[in-house]
Amino acid sequence: MGLSLINSTTISLRFSPEPKLILPKFHQNVNFYGDGFCKNLSFTTTTPRRSLLSIKSEFPNEKSYSKIGAQSTGPIPAKQLLQVVELAANTGAKVVMDAVNKPRNISYKGLTDLVTDTDKMSETAILGVVNENFKDHLILGEEGGLIGDSSSDYLWCIDPLDGTTNFAHGYPSFAVSVAVLFRGKPAAAAVVEFVGGPMCWNTRTFCASAGGGAFCNGQKIHVSQTDQVERSLLVTGFGYEHDDAWATNINLFKEFTDISRGVRRLGAAAVDMCHVALGIVESYWEYRLKPWDMAAGVLIVEEAGGIVSRMDGGEFCVFDRSVIVSNGILHSKLLERISPPTQKLKDNGIDFSWWFKPENYHTDL
Amino acid sequence: MGLSLINSTTISLRFSPEPKLILPKFHQNVNFYGDGFCKNLSFTTTTPRRSLLSIKSEFPNEKSYSKIGAQSTGPIPAKQLLQVVELAANTGAKVVMDAVNKPRNISYKGLTDLVTDTDKMSETAILGVVNENFKDHLILGEEGGLIGDSSSDYLWCIDPLDGTTNFAHGYPSFAVSVAVLFRGKPAAAAVVEFVGGPMCWNTRTFCASAGGGAFCNGQKIHVSQTDQVERSLLVTGFGYEHDDAWATNINLFKEFTDISRGVRRLGAAAVDMCHVALGIVESYWEYRLKPWDMAAGVLIVEEAGGIVSRMDGGEFCVFDRSVIVSNGILHSKLLERISPPTQKLKDNGIDFSWWFKPENYHTDL
Repeated sequence: MGLSLINSTTISLRFSPEPKLILPKFHQNVNFYGDGFCKNLSFTTTTPRRSLLSIKSEFPNEKSYSKIGAQSTGPIPAKQLLQVVELAANTGAKVVMDAVNKPRNISYKGLTDLVTDTDKMSETAILGVVNENFKDHLILGEEGGLIGDSSSDYLWCIDPLDGTTNFAHGYPSFAVSVAVLFRGKPAAAAVVEFVGGPMCWNTRTFCASAGGGAFCNGQKIHVSQTDQVERSLLVTGFGYEHDDAWATNINLFKEFTDISRGVRRLGAAAVDMCHVALGIVESYWEYRLKPWDMAAGVLIVEEAGGIVSRMDGGEFCVFDRSVIVSNGILHSKLLERISPPTQKLKDNGIDFSWWFKPENYHTDL
Repeated sequence: MGLSLINSTTISLRFSPEPKLILPKFHQNVNFYGDGFCKNLSFTTTTPRRSLLSIKSEFPNEKSYSKIGAQSTGPIPAKQLLQVVELAANTGAKVVMDAVNKPRNISYKGLTDLVTDTDKMSETAILGVVNENFKDHLILGEEGGLIGDSSSDYLWCIDPLDGTTNFAHGYPSFAVSVAVLFRGKPAAAAVVEFVGGPMCWNTRTFCASAGGGAFCNGQKIHVSQTDQVERSLLVTGFGYEHDDAWATNINLFKEFTDISRGVRRLGAAAVDMCHVALGIVESYWEYRLKPWDMAAGVLIVEEAGGIVSRMDGGEFCVFDRSVIVSNGILHSKLLERISPPTQKLKDNGIDFSWWFKPENYHTDL
């Protein structure tokens, strides 16, 4: 759409009650979607994006949530870290793209939890990039487990093929997800999403660095501004372990399908989180994810202006066993329904301690 | 993949117990996916595709299901009918593509059942094409209702924007779906699917004519050959009416999420059915769809070698209130779990009579 359609009257609808902040100037790629809500905002560099986030705390009923991104990237500049993260993700993505129309050699971790040769080849390619650039970093990969020096401040979390079941069926979407933590918190992240499917495969690349904003195909992105649950589109996931948490989330799926515009079930955690960052869905949650599923997506959502927490509302870290990401505005409203059953699971003794933190790996958590 | 990877040993895995039919010769675009199963088969014209279907009845436990496609296209040649169907769908799709990055003007049919100006503009464009070519045909459109001559043998079923909620959020996929019935049975169909999403919108066009096969972007397509529920990827939908049938399908969602590789929830019926035809999911079912949601998709699935029935296993027509489409091989196995609760709904007095058949419209049903 042209800039001629953007005027201060329309914009101000988004900030009621009236914000105390002067609105930033817009330049190209400002898109409006459903209900006239503003998404994918791009700002001039004269107005730091972080200051816009502070508006949200002025909304009534808006609880504040802790930032999950790293405060610093340590001795390595953010730009350099992001470059290697992106190179690593793109290197994995090349392996995956080469395989999308070829036969899959599938093996099983469980009855329905499958893994393909492509998962392994993608991870090997990604590890090569990380090792070439940072020989002494610690790496946690979905397929290869933990390798490297656990005294490093940097921990790479690699999902070489997020959404393997979709990949095996040729069903979009799936992704390559790479993030690097500095002292336990995400510092830089990249997700290459495979979209379209047979006859029209394509990719879309998301990236973010802590404090540096989130981007899709080089364009700055922003979460949606939808502020009513009944006007929200949501997405969730169900893991391979069919335990009490799984059953609780089936109930949540039913409850939110009843009251929202719909709950999507796409099957790739990193993709679902990037879709929140892109503003095409308002929230995503899931129990029982692993650090490699979450580390990149959570930073991309936060840097797109969203909020990340555990499903009981507590402060999130990538070693946790539940996550909810949202556009921020809806976070507390969604947790009103998601937090109590999660708390009940905890009360019933379901394990919500950290899934795994590498021994000796030092964090600021 | 190259033809060098295709050999008779691999192919024969698909037809155990041994079929009595000589396998067709393959040419380009033969793709293999998960588990070495064969999809998207393209056949030389020397072997009619329909003869391959007859293999399925030789599988143990394989019940036969009635064909839902028209036996004839009447006085209008199939080729001509298909040309107009495709032109109509593409004309609607142009309207939708023009709108994907623009603001949506949304109104509501219910609390969460929305409609946009694009739905209406797309339908108007499609009606123009139909009227220009067949002035005396009867037309049933999602937005405009019934228009035209009810004494016609031809009934057009038009969904100008299937998956409006997704469209409103910029969430792929959604579609334009157009089919024409001859005496109540689908004769020709086209679905233009919008894939990718922001930064990478694209389309994929499915079409079929009764007895003429199914195609995607001009390439012949075929359902998957997966024969185990636990190795299947499934998809379902939940309508706006949250009644007993809706609750039953939430239970089915839970049950199949538990035992299959996953149940996807994408939000566009025509798209979901085309994905079965393309072989990237094994089955799709939903209660409470309307003729414009189903008419194109069911023919495309059947012409891709799949099976279509009601959710109680009964013979399907587009005026029915439930549908299940599958790759055929799994149809009876899936119905073992889907049919009993559907029958129970019927026993409890839930209305499963035809939703609507235009008065005076003559059918062969």
